[in-house]
Amino acid sequence: MAKASVLTPQDADFPRWYQDLIGKAELADNGPVRGTMVMRPYGYALWERMQQELDARIKAAGARNAYFPLFIPESYLSREAEHVEGFAPELAVVTHGGGKRLEEPVVVRPTSETIVNEYFAKWINSYRDLPLLINQWANVVRWEMRPRVFLRTTEFLWQEGHTAHASYEEARDYAARIHREVYADLLRDVLAIDVVLGRKSPAERFAGAINTLTLEGMMRDGKALQLGTSHELGQNFARAFDTRYLGADGTRQLVWQTSWGASTRMVGGLIMSHGDDHGLRVPPRLAPVQAVVLAVKSDDAVLAAVRESAARLREAGVRVETDERADIPFGRRAVDWELKGVPVRVEIGPRDLADGTATLVRRIPGEKQPVALAALPELLPAWLEEDQARLLRESRERREARTTEVSTVEEAVEAAAVGGWARIPWARLGPEGEARLARDAVSVRVLVAADGSVPASDDAPGTVAVVGRAY
Amino acid sequence: MAKASVLTPQDADFPRWYQDLIGKAELADNGPVRGTMVMRPYGYALWERMQQELDARIKAAGARNAYFPLFIPESYLSREAEHVEGFAPELAVVTHGGGKRLEEPVVVRPTSETIVNEYFAKWINSYRDLPLLINQWANVVRWEMRPRVFLRTTEFLWQEGHTAHASYEEARDYAARIHREVYADLLRDVLAIDVVLGRKSPAERFAGAINTLTLEGMMRDGKALQLGTSHELGQNFARAFDTRYLGADGTRQLVWQTSWGASTRMVGGLIMSHGDDHGLRVPPRLAPVQAVVLAVKSDDAVLAAVRESAARLREAGVRVETDERADIPFGRRAVDWELKGVPVRVEIGPRDLADGTATLVRRIPGEKQPVALAALPELLPAWLEEDQARLLRESRERREARTTEVSTVEEAVEAAAVGGWARIPWARLGPEGEARLARDAVSVRVLVAADGSVPASDDAPGTVAVVGRAY
Repeated sequence: MAKASVLTPQDADFPRWYQDLIGKAELADNGPVRGTMVMRPYGYALWERMQQELDARIKAAGARNAYFPLFIPESYLSREAEHVEGFAPELAVVTHGGGKRLEEPVVVRPTSETIVNEYFAKWINSYRDLPLLINQWANVVRWEMRPRVFLRTTEFLWQEGHTAHASYEEARDYAARIHREVYADLLRDVLAIDVVLGRKSPAERFAGAINTLTLEGMMRDGKALQLGTSHELGQNFARAFDTRYLGADGTRQLVWQTSWGASTRMVGGLIMSHGDDHGLRVPPRLAPVQAVVLAVKSDDAVLAAVRESAARLREAGVRVETDERADIPFGRRAVDWELKGVPVRVEIGPRDLADGTATLVRRIPGEKQPVALAALPELLPAWLEEDQARLLRESRERREARTTEVSTVEEAVEAAAVGGWARIPWARLGPEGEARLARDAVSVRVLVAADGSVPASDDAPGTVAVVGRAY
Repeated sequence: MAKASVLTPQDADFPRWYQDLIGKAELADNGPVRGTMVMRPYGYALWERMQQELDARIKAAGARNAYFPLFIPESYLSREAEHVEGFAPELAVVTHGGGKRLEEPVVVRPTSETIVNEYFAKWINSYRDLPLLINQWANVVRWEMRPRVFLRTTEFLWQEGHTAHASYEEARDYAARIHREVYADLLRDVLAIDVVLGRKSPAERFAGAINTLTLEGMMRDGKALQLGTSHELGQNFARAFDTRYLGADGTRQLVWQTSWGASTRMVGGLIMSHGDDHGLRVPPRLAPVQAVVLAVKSDDAVLAAVRESAARLREAGVRVETDERADIPFGRRAVDWELKGVPVRVEIGPRDLADGTATLVRRIPGEKQPVALAALPELLPAWLEEDQARLLRESRERREARTTEVSTVEEAVEAAAVGGWARIPWARLGPEGEARLARDAVSVRVLVAADGSVPASDDAPGTVAVVGRAY
């Protein structure tokens, strides 16, 4: 392992470690307008892989991509009372366009439920048009008072799904399906984060929803990060925009709706779930680069072996890059790939070549071993899967080890203070206890059923509140 | 062929035909804020396919994706004099954020050269950091006085490439490479538009560039559409942002830059290049749906045959959908797919089934014939390639037939008035002739060398100006 001294150790100062890593691994920079960010190529490549995996799952769930405008007339937001109350403080407002003052100011979308409903109301005529399942990839703006790169930025990238259904049950089931088949599947199986699935408490719901499903991950400092939400909107927006369909019975009915989103915040979650004092560790299934083949020295035989080895790994289905840079010392390049968290380094030097071997460094377990070059394409895919499983296991074990069963609000606050989560019966906590937690910056992250499933309602018997500090 | 009566005929009113088609084929709607648009799922699917094809070519040219913020401090734009002069009249300005008046207003990016340079100046230290080849997929805003869906919208989606190089020659060659290997390849080989490649006249250059390369397509009404541009920026932005590198000789030098973009405008170009009075015709290589298998009647045997046939076509590498809608009359569904321009319809009814045949309708040549279902997976890919070639041939023949060689400005204006292009020696036209053309809304679309190649300079001997009316 290379020296860890390039990063502040996690134990010494976790927020500073996070900032250090984002800079040194060249993931992102702060933008010039407060709270915005520049995603550098490697940071963007992580997001691009998340997009690909999400997009495939969203399409498999039957939704089709579309695109709605960035600019929303200010008046649209006011039509749904809770929605405007929730978003008004975070809006960016365009007052001038084309050199003139606008007659009606427009807001830069903080989310698109209102403008989507304006069009759903036009497109939906009869029950034959339902369900209408739409997704869009877009940037949104929510003015941030306490910005942090990837986690809370004034502008962020996301996908937002918007659907309309003929019945409450169908909408409810679709929101649950997205929660499970799209988000949980991505976060657990690709990002290797052992998220907890459940409901938000009424106080933590999306502004305008009748129910919000969430996925919460525990970061390495014991704090929680919300990594995706799926909302049942009921008929709130349908009522505000008169989004109706002609039923088979000839009557005009309001549709039932869902919306759901996941954002570049997931990149922050990835970093804080798997990063260590040496840098990021990217789960192999997500990694834009799964293996890098390095020329220890730049001589012709070594370079030829590096390229051949990379080509053979590529044929075996591994995402590979080569590092042939002769003008940067080898040690610095090794540290660089370690910071970037590429799962495997294959280091080939003149001495190795003579033996037909290379030095294999696995970033996730932190192991270094000699390996026969000829055997690599056959062995590597299984090792990558092992390392993928290891990250998920670490994530689960951390959550289990740092979650405490408690029975009083005071105990819950204490558990959160030392960096962890507490589980407390929701019937015992309730909205009053939730308000009490808030005084210590602790919140109800998610409500789960006793058996770990998603509770069917806020007051389902046996519901447990998982509480902690959060990003 | 279904009746054409759903659309205004092209000959009667081309702009109205265009609007009709965009509505009836469910490609897009006007947005609520003037000049914005909503891309509906089928319109977006066309764009998504363009994105996939572009993205692969951009990556093959060595550029990596990144993301820069939507909001740019107003002061950035002013640093390059020509640039701000060109874009100031089209800016959308955010004056309020998070409930407060901003200290410095921010503009919504009309393009990103300025903000990109702010970061290039930070990221580039030495010659080892060059070339720096970046691309981003983003929305941009340019306030439009005369908006038209896809062609000129206040907000549009695009990719914008930004690169920095150590020498003028390298930057020039990279701009030319993108022009040829990315844009021309996509437009000709995938979109089947026989574009003309060349230089812009100095008056038509991008604001801040020293040279702009363009690709111009002739639409079915004889007007021109610019479908992509690749700019040599020289050192203009590098000077404004002090973007320098330490050369191998130890001196600090300004970088040489390029930028290049293609946008959702290409969807408009696709429609106006290939659409006819029956609707759109999508080139098979681009088509999100290459073949639709329709159940003429909804009985079990027919539905089983439809699904099996679709599955076998999918195995043969064809992008297929089935249309099993029983509640919409067959004729209406056929018109619908014709409007959407899906290259092939495979219609299966009870009578066909008995013979093991289907009715095959090829949208591009407009042919209908019986076909043996069993043979279809083997035959279809070749037919799709035939139809792809046919669209490109039609595009080339139209351009050739409607381009006139002229020797005076008056003749050029006349050729444009009847719906076509004129070719005139650039030495004869010159900036004065160009100003004269402008009085009749005719412009120099592109400068080409006598042999059809891209001229090396504005005043290369033998340069020909291609002029016409344009979108």
